[in-house]
Amino acid sequence: MTILDGKKVSADIKAEIKADVDKMKQRGEKVPHLAAVIVGNDGASLTYVGSKVRACEQVGFESTLIKLSSTISEIELLDKIHQLNKDENIDGFIVQLPLPKQIDTQKVLMQIDPDKDVDGFHPTNFGKMALDMTTFIPATPFGILELLERYNVETKGKHTVVIGRSHIVGRPMSILMGRKGFPGNSTVTLTHSHTKNITQITSQADIIITALGVPNYLKAEMVKDDAVIIDVGITRVPDEDHPKGYVITGDVDFENVSKKVSYITPVPGGVGPMTISMLLKNTLLAREQHRFKKGL
Amino acid sequence: MTILDGKKVSADIKAEIKADVDKMKQRGEKVPHLAAVIVGNDGASLTYVGSKVRACEQVGFESTLIKLSSTISEIELLDKIHQLNKDENIDGFIVQLPLPKQIDTQKVLMQIDPDKDVDGFHPTNFGKMALDMTTFIPATPFGILELLERYNVETKGKHTVVIGRSHIVGRPMSILMGRKGFPGNSTVTLTHSHTKNITQITSQADIIITALGVPNYLKAEMVKDDAVIIDVGITRVPDEDHPKGYVITGDVDFENVSKKVSYITPVPGGVGPMTISMLLKNTLLAREQHRFKKGL
Repeated sequence: MTILDGKKVSADIKAEIKADVDKMKQRGEKVPHLAAVIVGNDGASLTYVGSKVRACEQVGFESTLIKLSSTISEIELLDKIHQLNKDENIDGFIVQLPLPKQIDTQKVLMQIDPDKDVDGFHPTNFGKMALDMTTFIPATPFGILELLERYNVETKGKHTVVIGRSHIVGRPMSILMGRKGFPGNSTVTLTHSHTKNITQITSQADIIITALGVPNYLKAEMVKDDAVIIDVGITRVPDEDHPKGYVITGDVDFENVSKKVSYITPVPGGVGPMTISMLLKNTLLAREQHRFKKGL
Repeated sequence: MTILDGKKVSADIKAEIKADVDKMKQRGEKVPHLAAVIVGNDGASLTYVGSKVRACEQVGFESTLIKLSSTISEIELLDKIHQLNKDENIDGFIVQLPLPKQIDTQKVLMQIDPDKDVDGFHPTNFGKMALDMTTFIPATPFGILELLERYNVETKGKHTVVIGRSHIVGRPMSILMGRKGFPGNSTVTLTHSHTKNITQITSQADIIITALGVPNYLKAEMVKDDAVIIDVGITRVPDEDHPKGYVITGDVDFENVSKKVSYITPVPGGVGPMTISMLLKNTLLAREQHRFKKGL
């Protein structure tokens, strides 16, 4: 059994990006610049955005954090988005979710210039992904592809079962695993809350990608020998013995499942750490496309 | 066993659209206007476009057929697309494929205004579809949904297996059957040329949608009792006894499969006739959205 070590791979990717940025600097080129918009003071959101900004610093990117009041109107936020779209100095930007309830999230995401949409949530980028075109792939699915690729996990002709059909993980993952190329060319089954006989389905899978958010959902008896397990679940489970008062728990009963499989991601330290690195990769790609467009 | 009679349903839909158009005329409103661009003299393409124009006439739409020389340059064709995008009188338009080889098809399709893209092939519309937003659904998948809906075929919690991952049928169909709502909420497996043990997979399916283009591919032993079979294959198989010299043959061994299933589409007369009706439906939707935008 091999642990798919997201923490290590993520660090490798950051080091590679940093090397690229160092070369850019040596050539006197502008380095990639990521902006992050956060609305309100939600603790978890502030933590996420903070890590993204720190990651930019680690690899030598420029970054801008734009903090907006939780009482901001939709029009004011849209104005900000339009400013960022026009700002030649910004290569890509993200709007941290969730947004306060007076704001129509879909409307805001639709207004982001697809060429700067490094989260890959804009329909144009999502459609390009589904139509096998080059685009920004949402960070979590992109991170899973990268893990599979770096560990050279065979996906062609394998049966991949995806659990959960969210827009940010399950749905894109189900599309990506069935695309041509590597990783890809899998037979893909997408399961969700209406799926019957889930055990019958998962126990036929060569690769299981679970993004359900139910701690320890996937048991050993649901998994066949030598399967590949990707655990996208991150749930805070209260734990008095832990200094933080909780432990981060995945969808997979790791202790028992890990004994029979060929590859598995741990939680924490698997898919999670990959996400920020892939956001950096998308920002680097945005910078390159931006430069190419301007003929520089 | 019930035949999903696409010919009849398609005629019903056209009658419903005609009734809508008649009301528009009575109210003195502009009727929907579809334009079709065809490049070159390919016989099959001319036939397809001809039927689309005739269908417009049947329901009372305006239509414009734009025939361009097979030697047209990409820039000239793009100019034409931009004219159609700007033309307030045109609600939607299609570019008949295939295009001659001097032209980059993807580039051309990308230039169609998504609000006029009644074929639903633009990445923005494809992405909206995958993200559960309202948009133009490509005609063939849209036709299949409509057939399932009108015959009230249960899809929730059923296992749907899609055979073939083309951009115009298999991929969108696999997405649509797994979306929320009806028809939808299926557990969906997308299979393709790299799939192993296809019989093992199809024989577990409650619903099979095959878009492979291999005549009589799906045999009775690949199908479980009471399954629902949707046959998107249309292949011309040479037949000297037939006046045309060929017969249109589906992917399904109809004679034997039809004996054990609950619902099945015939070929011809199943999915095929639905396609043009759904193009008309998309054009009607484009007209409504166009009118709404202009506040009329």
